[in-house]
Amino acid sequence: MISITIIGSGNVASHLITAFGNCKTISVKQVFSRAKIDFELPTNTKLIHNLAELKPVDLVIISVSDSAITEVSAQIKIPNQLVAHTSGSMDMNILDDSLRKAVFYPLQTFSKSKNINFSEVPIAVETQHENDMELLLTVANSLSAKVFKINSIQRKNIHIAAVYVNNFTNHLYKIANDIADEHQFPFEILLPLIDETTEKIHHLKPEDAQTGPAKRHDDVTINSHLQSINNKMYQDIYQLLTKSIQENG
Amino acid sequence: MISITIIGSGNVASHLITAFGNCKTISVKQVFSRAKIDFELPTNTKLIHNLAELKPVDLVIISVSDSAITEVSAQIKIPNQLVAHTSGSMDMNILDDSLRKAVFYPLQTFSKSKNINFSEVPIAVETQHENDMELLLTVANSLSAKVFKINSIQRKNIHIAAVYVNNFTNHLYKIANDIADEHQFPFEILLPLIDETTEKIHHLKPEDAQTGPAKRHDDVTINSHLQSINNKMYQDIYQLLTKSIQENG
Repeated sequence: MISITIIGSGNVASHLITAFGNCKTISVKQVFSRAKIDFELPTNTKLIHNLAELKPVDLVIISVSDSAITEVSAQIKIPNQLVAHTSGSMDMNILDDSLRKAVFYPLQTFSKSKNINFSEVPIAVETQHENDMELLLTVANSLSAKVFKINSIQRKNIHIAAVYVNNFTNHLYKIANDIADEHQFPFEILLPLIDETTEKIHHLKPEDAQTGPAKRHDDVTINSHLQSINNKMYQDIYQLLTKSIQENG
Repeated sequence: MISITIIGSGNVASHLITAFGNCKTISVKQVFSRAKIDFELPTNTKLIHNLAELKPVDLVIISVSDSAITEVSAQIKIPNQLVAHTSGSMDMNILDDSLRKAVFYPLQTFSKSKNINFSEVPIAVETQHENDMELLLTVANSLSAKVFKINSIQRKNIHIAAVYVNNFTNHLYKIANDIADEHQFPFEILLPLIDETTEKIHHLKPEDAQTGPAKRHDDVTINSHLQSINNKMYQDIYQLLTKSIQENG
């Protein structure tokens, strides 16, 4: 049985706690949260509100906002404790030097209101010491079938790529939703197209899946679209992405 | 039995011909193609290479490039023939004035290499004459469960929205793929996140689904990302979309 403590109670932390709680090979010893928590803890897990109460475990996972990781790690007064953060964008080295450092980064978008099937969530792991890797891999494999050894530079770039495919893509959906509201057609009319766009890149390289006025240099349609878009920033986005499709493929 | 002729043999035309060929209530009389065709025609459908050979039918569908629609429609020498084009961006009125005008716009991204389940494809229909609407609706309903009466201005804006959610989203996938290649991690690591991003907006409004550094005004992460992006245009896209998330929600 591997013992784990989780520091944090946000989106990622709460999903991890629940997922580990369902693992027969993992015992979640303690959960630290500054405030009350709004989700259920596994049986036998102790909620603490003071980091001085932390007990040594096989692995402590810090799942707090990026800017708080270093400070929180400095409050873990268990020398040589193995500690992983869950951030996509922060270097492993920001953890306190008194600790054995690691990263446990689940690459998924989490909402508290929505359950996640963790077996499909890629997990990127990294350790400061080579002989901690086996434990990290065991813990990651207990949740997911898709575990990758990824160094800090790669992880940072995965996070950047994730911003494009998640945050920015979602914003394009928001723009489409605004256009639908303005012209009184249901946003739902676009869902099959959205699904198909996503489905396609499971089989085709994105550049081979590209179609539309930008790709075929259809300036008549492009200019006519630009004249119809009322939001200046949405117009700029249309123009820049059209140019990038034409120059980068 | 409703008789249809299709002018064109591109992506949209070929999928429509195949789908109508599988409809018991529709007979595809003729297909016009300038060149040889690389897909199978329904039994009893005649391939013609000269528009002078067109026979009167219940509905002629012109599925050619936007810039060719007007010219092709002028070559249909059957006065008062009901004729629909399939373009998302062109006005119904660009069809020749000797014809009864209509639009039959299937809102989906078509690739020749990939089959389409037409029952899930929204179809937007419009007619010049109110009493042609029933036939257009019957034809559209024979293919799809999602048929909408949509006027030309709405249709143009649906097409604009479709460019954002299809062409531009696909380009964001292409950017992520370039980042993956550059930093030697598999693009596949991003697929569960891409799927979840799409899945979410079936249940949440896009602005309620938004997360990430732009949304939480995390300038440290944003600046660190911008410094890591080598392609200047991808950097500009990151900056503009971040700004738009912050200003438009």
